[in-house]
Amino acid sequence: MHDLSQRLISGDTRSLARALSLVEDRRDGYVEVLKDCYRRGGKARIIGVTGPPGAGKSTLVDKLIGTYRGKGLKVAVVAVDPSSAFSGGAILGDRIRMQDRATDPGVYIRSMATRGHMGGLAVATADALTVLDAAGFDVILVETVGVGQDEVDIIREADTVLVVLVPGLGDDIQAIKAGIMEIADVFVINKADRDGVDRVERELHYLLTLAGEPQDWTPPVVKTIALKNQGLDDLEKAVDHHARHLASDGGGQGRLRMKFSQRFRDILSERFLMEISAHHLTPDREEELLGRFLRREEDPYTAAEELLGRIRWE
Amino acid sequence: MHDLSQRLISGDTRSLARALSLVEDRRDGYVEVLKDCYRRGGKARIIGVTGPPGAGKSTLVDKLIGTYRGKGLKVAVVAVDPSSAFSGGAILGDRIRMQDRATDPGVYIRSMATRGHMGGLAVATADALTVLDAAGFDVILVETVGVGQDEVDIIREADTVLVVLVPGLGDDIQAIKAGIMEIADVFVINKADRDGVDRVERELHYLLTLAGEPQDWTPPVVKTIALKNQGLDDLEKAVDHHARHLASDGGGQGRLRMKFSQRFRDILSERFLMEISAHHLTPDREEELLGRFLRREEDPYTAAEELLGRIRWE
Repeated sequence: MHDLSQRLISGDTRSLARALSLVEDRRDGYVEVLKDCYRRGGKARIIGVTGPPGAGKSTLVDKLIGTYRGKGLKVAVVAVDPSSAFSGGAILGDRIRMQDRATDPGVYIRSMATRGHMGGLAVATADALTVLDAAGFDVILVETVGVGQDEVDIIREADTVLVVLVPGLGDDIQAIKAGIMEIADVFVINKADRDGVDRVERELHYLLTLAGEPQDWTPPVVKTIALKNQGLDDLEKAVDHHARHLASDGGGQGRLRMKFSQRFRDILSERFLMEISAHHLTPDREEELLGRFLRREEDPYTAAEELLGRIRWE
Repeated sequence: MHDLSQRLISGDTRSLARALSLVEDRRDGYVEVLKDCYRRGGKARIIGVTGPPGAGKSTLVDKLIGTYRGKGLKVAVVAVDPSSAFSGGAILGDRIRMQDRATDPGVYIRSMATRGHMGGLAVATADALTVLDAAGFDVILVETVGVGQDEVDIIREADTVLVVLVPGLGDDIQAIKAGIMEIADVFVINKADRDGVDRVERELHYLLTLAGEPQDWTPPVVKTIALKNQGLDDLEKAVDHHARHLASDGGGQGRLRMKFSQRFRDILSERFLMEISAHHLTPDREEELLGRFLRREEDPYTAAEELLGRIRWE
């Protein structure tokens, strides 16, 4: 076992931070650390929290930390900020607020920004979850602003996904239909003291009736006012209920299988490209190829077929 | 040459639509079509338009269509909506408005949503651009809401990137710094009759002075009121100026090289995974592996190393 894995598994927070950075930057030894963490993992409950900007996700996450800490559980948060390019400021503000938790040794918060991750943000997040899981956190909250495919891929790593909405989000909740119905395990209507809460709730229930064939799980709709600590017990119960559902009927297994299947392909792809770059697409060869692409003498599909055609499987 | 390529290159719009769908869905023959299109391409000017929601991108795109049509150029638009999960409604509204152009045979508009693209949205967009380029469009406008890595990857396909801002975007333009400074070729301050325009302009110029070492291109800042047709001539001049810059000093070549380098890797990865799924990771074998992952008897990194270890290169 890699030293770093050994130390982080034994609970050393500094080693945990170092391991997370090592893995994120793909530095030497990162594969060993991930292998160790995979073998030791599978114990944490991963709860995803997503929803549009302004829905109060960070406050809700902060309150959920409190809820699980109150039960003596160790809690990690992975806060993924995919929108730093345009609205980073506001989300950063939330992050700073949440750092009040930093004095509690049973809480670990890791922020990840969109940019600069080899292999993409979804892979980087999945790896961070693997490390935190091995480090012994009981609950890991993954928070992301839900826009774009990247974020849907990220939130799929969770066992239970909370989609957080607010009254007055827009003229029509239909706008949130695509993509979200299929990933939500629990709907949260936060800021439920605002006008329009009944309408959001009614529209959500209506959307749920459109789900088509009977589902084995119908996402409950929970109303909260996170800032005033209202509705948090109901939310925790809904999350627990979903966890028991996953455990009981094997639906959780199918979900884990899909997750691992995607992960395995991501790993194959990243490692294959690393090998290609190291041994089969030397800078000179690549330069020559790019020149041919630019002059339209060759196209990248034909070149890829030629390169892949040199592979023989044992 | 594939029939569909032949017909779309000769200007048949129905074949163009069919080819775009074929490629997007990865149906039989898509590789042939893309090969044909690559060989015939490289003529279109690709202009990316990005910026936060509400900046007036769609109106600006609509006006730019008018500008280029006025010069007798054929114009295509690829409108990428990465945020359909939450804010699809508003953007869809813009799309419908733009469909007024649908009666002009010199304009072709293609919308792409985030979800359901094998290989990811950036790859899907790049492929669509390749097909539209071969179909003989002189200018292709790629519009996307700029949030997340996906959208940065998409916008990088453009020769010239317009970043559209508006006064009153937020307290501090610093929030837009990350990631955007490096992709903007031209800054547009739209809705320039609003309060705060001087402040946005001043802050942009200040940010530009922070760019560090002298750049070979300093993005100009152009003010527009697209709805009132103001500033569009200046914008067109700025875009042209950038195009001449790319052509003159070879900076354009470096950019195209980077683009092709990324594309080639995306293609290698997609084709490799297709081969793996078809021949080396049978459903039975995958099922067995996933079971081992779930029971933590095996980790996906080790399994990937074993599978890739079976490769011999000729």
